[in-house]
Amino acid sequence: MFPHRHLTGIEGLEPHEIAFLLDEAEHWVEANRQHDRGQDRDWARLAGLTQINAFFENSTRTLLSFEIAGKRLGADVVNMHAAQSSVKKGETLIDTAQTLNAMRADILVIRHMSSGAVKLIADKVDCAVLNAGDGRHEHPTQALLDALTIRRRRGRIEGQRVVICGDLLHSRVARSNILALTALAAEVRVCAPSTLMPPAVERMGVTRFTDFDAALEGADVVMMLRLQNERMDGGYVPSPREFRLRYGLTPERLKRAKADALVMHPGPMNRGIEIDSAVADGPQSAITEQVAMGVAVRMACLDVLTRRARGVEGWA
Amino acid sequence: MFPHRHLTGIEGLEPHEIAFLLDEAEHWVEANRQHDRGQDRDWARLAGLTQINAFFENSTRTLLSFEIAGKRLGADVVNMHAAQSSVKKGETLIDTAQTLNAMRADILVIRHMSSGAVKLIADKVDCAVLNAGDGRHEHPTQALLDALTIRRRRGRIEGQRVVICGDLLHSRVARSNILALTALAAEVRVCAPSTLMPPAVERMGVTRFTDFDAALEGADVVMMLRLQNERMDGGYVPSPREFRLRYGLTPERLKRAKADALVMHPGPMNRGIEIDSAVADGPQSAITEQVAMGVAVRMACLDVLTRRARGVEGWA
Amino acid sequence: MFPHRHLTGIEGLEPHEIAFLLDEAEHWVEANRQHDRGQDRDWARLAGLTQINAFFENSTRTLLSFEIAGKRLGADVVNMHAAQSSVKKGETLIDTAQTLNAMRADILVIRHMSSGAVKLIADKVDCAVLNAGDGRHEHPTQALLDALTIRRRRGRIEGQRVVICGDLLHSRVARSNILALTALAAEVRVCAPSTLMPPAVERMGVTRFTDFDAALEGADVVMMLRLQNERMDGGYVPSPREFRLRYGLTPERLKRAKADALVMHPGPMNRGIEIDSAVADGPQSAITEQVAMGVAVRMACLDVLTRRARGVEGWA
Repeated sequence: MFPHRHLTGIEGLEPHEIAFLLDEAEHWVEANRQHDRGQDRDWARLAGLTQINAFFENSTRTLLSFEIAGKRLGADVVNMHAAQSSVKKGETLIDTAQTLNAMRADILVIRHMSSGAVKLIADKVDCAVLNAGDGRHEHPTQALLDALTIRRRRGRIEGQRVVICGDLLHSRVARSNILALTALAAEVRVCAPSTLMPPAVERMGVTRFTDFDAALEGADVVMMLRLQNERMDGGYVPSPREFRLRYGLTPERLKRAKADALVMHPGPMNRGIEIDSAVADGPQSAITEQVAMGVAVRMACLDVLTRRARGVEGWA
Repeated sequence: MFPHRHLTGIEGLEPHEIAFLLDEAEHWVEANRQHDRGQDRDWARLAGLTQINAFFENSTRTLLSFEIAGKRLGADVVNMHAAQSSVKKGETLIDTAQTLNAMRADILVIRHMSSGAVKLIADKVDCAVLNAGDGRHEHPTQALLDALTIRRRRGRIEGQRVVICGDLLHSRVARSNILALTALAAEVRVCAPSTLMPPAVERMGVTRFTDFDAALEGADVVMMLRLQNERMDGGYVPSPREFRLRYGLTPERLKRAKADALVMHPGPMNRGIEIDSAVADGPQSAITEQVAMGVAVRMACLDVLTRRARGVEGWA
Repeated sequence: MFPHRHLTGIEGLEPHEIAFLLDEAEHWVEANRQHDRGQDRDWARLAGLTQINAFFENSTRTLLSFEIAGKRLGADVVNMHAAQSSVKKGETLIDTAQTLNAMRADILVIRHMSSGAVKLIADKVDCAVLNAGDGRHEHPTQALLDALTIRRRRGRIEGQRVVICGDLLHSRVARSNILALTALAAEVRVCAPSTLMPPAVERMGVTRFTDFDAALEGADVVMMLRLQNERMDGGYVPSPREFRLRYGLTPERLKRAKADALVMHPGPMNRGIEIDSAVADGPQSAITEQVAMGVAVRMACLDVLTRRARGVEGWA
């Protein structure tokens, strides 16, 4: 069961609640393989409900994934793009939220460049709010899809040695993943140049490495992050070549992990920088599977978060 | 009954026709509160019909509102954004209209920066056309949603003293509201700096004020307009501070109106300029209610204007 | 029958396969005239299927046409705009394709500025791919809609003398039309200034003209191309006035063709340059009919290309 009205982050979720969302997503993984979705009424769980994707920060993959997820469930899906938004006319975020609320959205999917913006909106509206990424804070559906990928490919999450490598300082993906994976009892190692490592990251229950080779020893899963040059604000920026030399996942380096270690990346990839093509396209890669899990996880979240509104038994 | 093929403006509508649209909208106000929209066939009145939202001028709220309205009614809703439009390739407006018409749209919702552009298109197409705002001309659904808000909150429109304050010169919202409210026998007062007052506005049946305090005496409704700096073309532009001092709706100033006077604003608001936050968020404010009425009014207009095409009795 | 998984171009199609697609489109021409689309289950052939329109190059008409076509057939239609795309973050085209594939799209409609890009994607994905225009290569649905327009208005395509005039060098529309019309045994004449004529165009089975007046003698169909100044890269660009003088379709010039010759243009038109308004809006013009045929042709292609996935008899 899932008692929360919103999904603003992994933080605050109980391990069994995370597992519940993963279990729900499993149903949609199988279902998405079929093509008779239009005939099966179980698909149209969100028929008549309005899902607004309010993306104040651009995103292709995440928006597409949420849009497909909502439409497959029969929702009326409406996108609000920042570029066309009243935000440009100086409207406050709260006013925008109250406007969306007044239109009687049943679920708001929000991406914003500022950490905490999604929570701020969630506090002001009547409907369910789903965080699609806010600043450096959280990106919970990414963590869920990554956990689902690991669980399916490795059999379980507990006890898995997961190495997360790259620009941890700016990464909400890393933050949500650390929260989810530690909650599910994985052994999480983080690896970054010291300038891209969050202060006091150990408090999150992870082990800190600056040497990628050392971090990789015995790893079950290697999760690479995107080098986000667009988020570097003034601080030291490693050159792509320098970064690849020390933190790029090359075929040689991957050999330090377990022989069947899983390779993951949230995309879009900078091939030849944080990950080599031979690895990204190799047999250990789960990268396109992550994308497929993304749609299933988002369908599960949309379904679960609207059960209350739909009066599904046990939620009303 | 509503004998018109298009809704290009409030001008030319009989009072009973305006009232008919408001009555139709009432149905959807209640309906929008439910979440079982997918199960109820009455919702899908526009199933199989194609609604094209052709917005040659950007808008978030109005586009979202029309998109939600159409999708809730089951229409296939397609947005045409100006930024991606053939208009940029030098195509004429008439050619664009004929193209949309040839695609067998059943209803076109059009916003354009030029006054009269919507009428021009309406004259060239077979399907119903709905004006979502054209230049300084009209924005009829805004006037309808404002009238509906007043009618529901004040019990009636007839005899209500409504003060419309702000940049009247550039405001299609004000123009459509004056037309609707005077048709429905409200007492309309307009208030603006003389540089932002349309010439000969009295001919529209309103009383002109430049002193906001005087205008507010005994008001039942205070309707503030957005200070649209983006539309000021060369003329005198009051500074925000100066504007607030003389024309901003502050809590003190609101006291000159009736104790239960309604406060309205079409949004997006410039808080602290034309309206203070204490007023916008106060108990007399109907601002978020206006947004909710917007979806209902647009559903009513889409429904009514497509009855002819759908062969609904009495329209075919 | 149509044995191909994708429609990346007219090249490689057998004449009877082209004719099959035109026959299928005829069904939708009639159907689109009705307004009871929501009630008739035959419309919802693509219910539950996901159609992604991935437009890496802007387009209004073609995108609208594909979006309307897919929605009328009941598909979940999702647009991916280049401007909001991961492509801007440096992702490779193949990665984008694999991402869309992993989301379990059932059909991808792709427009791209590079010739061959659509084929490249088609080779990497499991689902059907439909080319909506790639570089100077092909634009097959445009050729199909043009062929359908000719067949309906002239009774047949075989033996018709079709003059294609304008910037042939940069035109994928011309290329696909030449392939389709010669396959269907029309007599095709191409006419352009020598600087805008592709080398060795005769090998495609057409007759080359630089004198428009000569080309027009006895023509059954005159197909004008858009003068695409935006694609001229460095070479000689005729001035609009100069172009009109030698290659513009004026009422006088049209008299050289047969008295009932058909006038066509893929749009958007540069009125007064490649075509005069008196011709574009005259009784011989089929220009808006082309737009209507576009929706029907795209519905046919979407339907045919997804039959395999839907398990329609004879395709599974």
